[in-house]
Amino acid sequence: MVISKLFSAQIHQWLQANRAQGETLLKSLVQANSIQGNEKQAQAIIIETLTKIGLKIDVWEPGGSELTEHPYFSSPRTDFSGSPNVIGILKGTGGGRSIILNGHIDVVPIGDKQQWKHDPFSGEIIDGRLYGRGATDMKGGNVSLLLAISAIRALGIPLKGDVIFQSVIEEESGGAGTLAAILRGYRADAAIIPEPTNLKIFPKQQGSLWFRLLVKGRAAHGGTRYEGVSAIEKALVVINQIKELERKRNSLITDPLFNDIPIPIPINLGRIQGGDWPSSVPDLVKLEGRLGVSPEEEIAEAKNELESWLQRLQEIDSWFAENPVEVEWFGARWVPGSIDVNHELVHVISSTYEKIIGKNPIIEASPWGTDGGLLTKVGGIPTIVFGPGTTEEAHFPNESIEIEKVFDAAEIIALTMIEWCET
Amino acid sequence: MVISKLFSAQIHQWLQANRAQGETLLKSLVQANSIQGNEKQAQAIIIETLTKIGLKIDVWEPGGSELTEHPYFSSPRTDFSGSPNVIGILKGTGGGRSIILNGHIDVVPIGDKQQWKHDPFSGEIIDGRLYGRGATDMKGGNVSLLLAISAIRALGIPLKGDVIFQSVIEEESGGAGTLAAILRGYRADAAIIPEPTNLKIFPKQQGSLWFRLLVKGRAAHGGTRYEGVSAIEKALVVINQIKELERKRNSLITDPLFNDIPIPIPINLGRIQGGDWPSSVPDLVKLEGRLGVSPEEEIAEAKNELESWLQRLQEIDSWFAENPVEVEWFGARWVPGSIDVNHELVHVISSTYEKIIGKNPIIEASPWGTDGGLLTKVGGIPTIVFGPGTTEEAHFPNESIEIEKVFDAAEIIALTMIEWCET
Repeated sequence: MVISKLFSAQIHQWLQANRAQGETLLKSLVQANSIQGNEKQAQAIIIETLTKIGLKIDVWEPGGSELTEHPYFSSPRTDFSGSPNVIGILKGTGGGRSIILNGHIDVVPIGDKQQWKHDPFSGEIIDGRLYGRGATDMKGGNVSLLLAISAIRALGIPLKGDVIFQSVIEEESGGAGTLAAILRGYRADAAIIPEPTNLKIFPKQQGSLWFRLLVKGRAAHGGTRYEGVSAIEKALVVINQIKELERKRNSLITDPLFNDIPIPIPINLGRIQGGDWPSSVPDLVKLEGRLGVSPEEEIAEAKNELESWLQRLQEIDSWFAENPVEVEWFGARWVPGSIDVNHELVHVISSTYEKIIGKNPIIEASPWGTDGGLLTKVGGIPTIVFGPGTTEEAHFPNESIEIEKVFDAAEIIALTMIEWCET
Repeated sequence: MVISKLFSAQIHQWLQANRAQGETLLKSLVQANSIQGNEKQAQAIIIETLTKIGLKIDVWEPGGSELTEHPYFSSPRTDFSGSPNVIGILKGTGGGRSIILNGHIDVVPIGDKQQWKHDPFSGEIIDGRLYGRGATDMKGGNVSLLLAISAIRALGIPLKGDVIFQSVIEEESGGAGTLAAILRGYRADAAIIPEPTNLKIFPKQQGSLWFRLLVKGRAAHGGTRYEGVSAIEKALVVINQIKELERKRNSLITDPLFNDIPIPIPINLGRIQGGDWPSSVPDLVKLEGRLGVSPEEEIAEAKNELESWLQRLQEIDSWFAENPVEVEWFGARWVPGSIDVNHELVHVISSTYEKIIGKNPIIEASPWGTDGGLLTKVGGIPTIVFGPGTTEEAHFPNESIEIEKVFDAAEIIALTMIEWCET
């Protein structure tokens, strides 16, 4: 513990001395728009940074049937040309526990650009916050990882266990990047993913998957709309049924890790589209959404429940007996995952948090899916999610992150690495 | 009346003898897909037919600032290249009343093709019905007009008043074709539009116009959807408010001509579109629809009512106080129109109907807008709508028309022309 105190002071001092460097790195990563299919520029910055730190680097474009035919593969695309994964390895001196530090480089679309106060890819810094798409989800967390590794390397702290830094693509579309890294053979004794938990510790991760509902109507002239059946009006019934299912599923969640989360496993309806002429009665509405899956639930169970719940629509409205809602599962899927709240890594990161921040950490279940489910279920790697930034900012216009927290997370992660991997 | 009886027999006989010709014409018109921008092939068939009948023909592509800047102009486009209007004139011998016979050549899109049993442009005939987009709205009616004129010409019945046949574009988008014909100087003492009234007589026509509603939300990550505001959920509130407005407006309609119409002036929501990512909370939903306008109402009044009704949303949900629904008026608009139910043309067509069909006609108000509003309000031409086919078929998949009714309408219209224009 004496050594640990010394390291603690050194790490703190190094991070203080290198604030400008960290800010510049985060700014350049945010400026490199890395929406799906466009990750190359941001990954080049990662490669440059890893090279400077002096890590062994592995860069490859995921692909091949082992990946795309894997039962846990989920992505709207199978060709990842131009979208590389990047891994940096800090080999340990031997005898210690290894750790994977995993962050995704892809960001979600910007949404309605008019709602952004600044260019979504400006990386502008105002009053200690850095603005831009990806600032909090999750380039801020990635920078925390890179700062933590940099500090350890720069200070010459010798770790016994290996550190494997992963900058993966495709998290926002279902984790094909992390799955590819697992299939490439990367394993460790534990993993940390610095998604924006607001420095809360998440030993359990909610899963989620995307669905598409096709709601039928019968077309008619709008002037005699009573002769048709509006798919928009039927969609209202379906939306209410989905909300009812959300209420039901959430009422069954008793895990205390969800105590402070208003809707533990939300069902989000994200897109709606229907009809093709203002003065015709629409005969088809498509709804696309995201079904939250509890950490303890199997993806297949959740699918079945939604499907049978929608079959019950015919009890509410006989229209659905002859015109059942069609359910399609498409696009992204995040596997749920959980580790015991008494796992050693939870203890290490909790006590480190307490030392640095001066109070007890909040331990919760994640309100969203992460690549942690894949690391745990497919890779067999106990994973926790812990990072800077808040989810109130993620996927929003005017996404931003409090820069101070990026450094707090870096400090906590660096000391956690030292304790976990041993010196 | 003796002469009229003679003509009546002759017309009946001619139509009987020329059934195959009429069916072939209707089939070829339906096969010529004439959705907006694609009317040329169908108009070529009209020109060929008018040439055979021996009418003086006027063909032009509408355009120019007189049209596009006219206060009653309404179209999503201002360039009508490749979309000609066609007019055929049968000059009278002088001293009689003139008549315009107006039909539109454009058809609405086919909607969901999978719901069509046959190719939407097959013109297939099964059990006395001809199938295809436009069969009832309104190529069937156009063929009734052409058959009526053909019969009168072929039988050498000399009319005193002029007959002006108009095959116009753009009715389904707001009547720019008919407006162009009025601006070109075409006027008459009365007009008939054979839209599919199921052989009912419509002296009053409902108007309608298109609107777009922009419903705002606030984006968030779907996993913490309670941190955002779903524009889809807010759209449900807006849709209910629109339905409430429809109930209110229709409760005030007391005209007996609407007695048998379930919703005299419907508000139809035809399109919905919102959100761009299944696992994000959508921040914008667009709703597009059609507002029915009573024959006695001004377009501006109806617009004001909808706008102020939507301002009241803030009383239901405070979200709308800071995020009011934006209303845009776009695309198509059909001017309402009405003539006195005791107008001479109503008497003439009613008594002719009685003679041919053997019972009293149904006289109602139209459940949809037609070009009759423009003919009445801009052209000052008293107009009634009367034609074969039913609105249950219009704008539907598997649109069709009972061929027999096309010939019934032709017979009634021919005799109405003889009585109106005088011999």
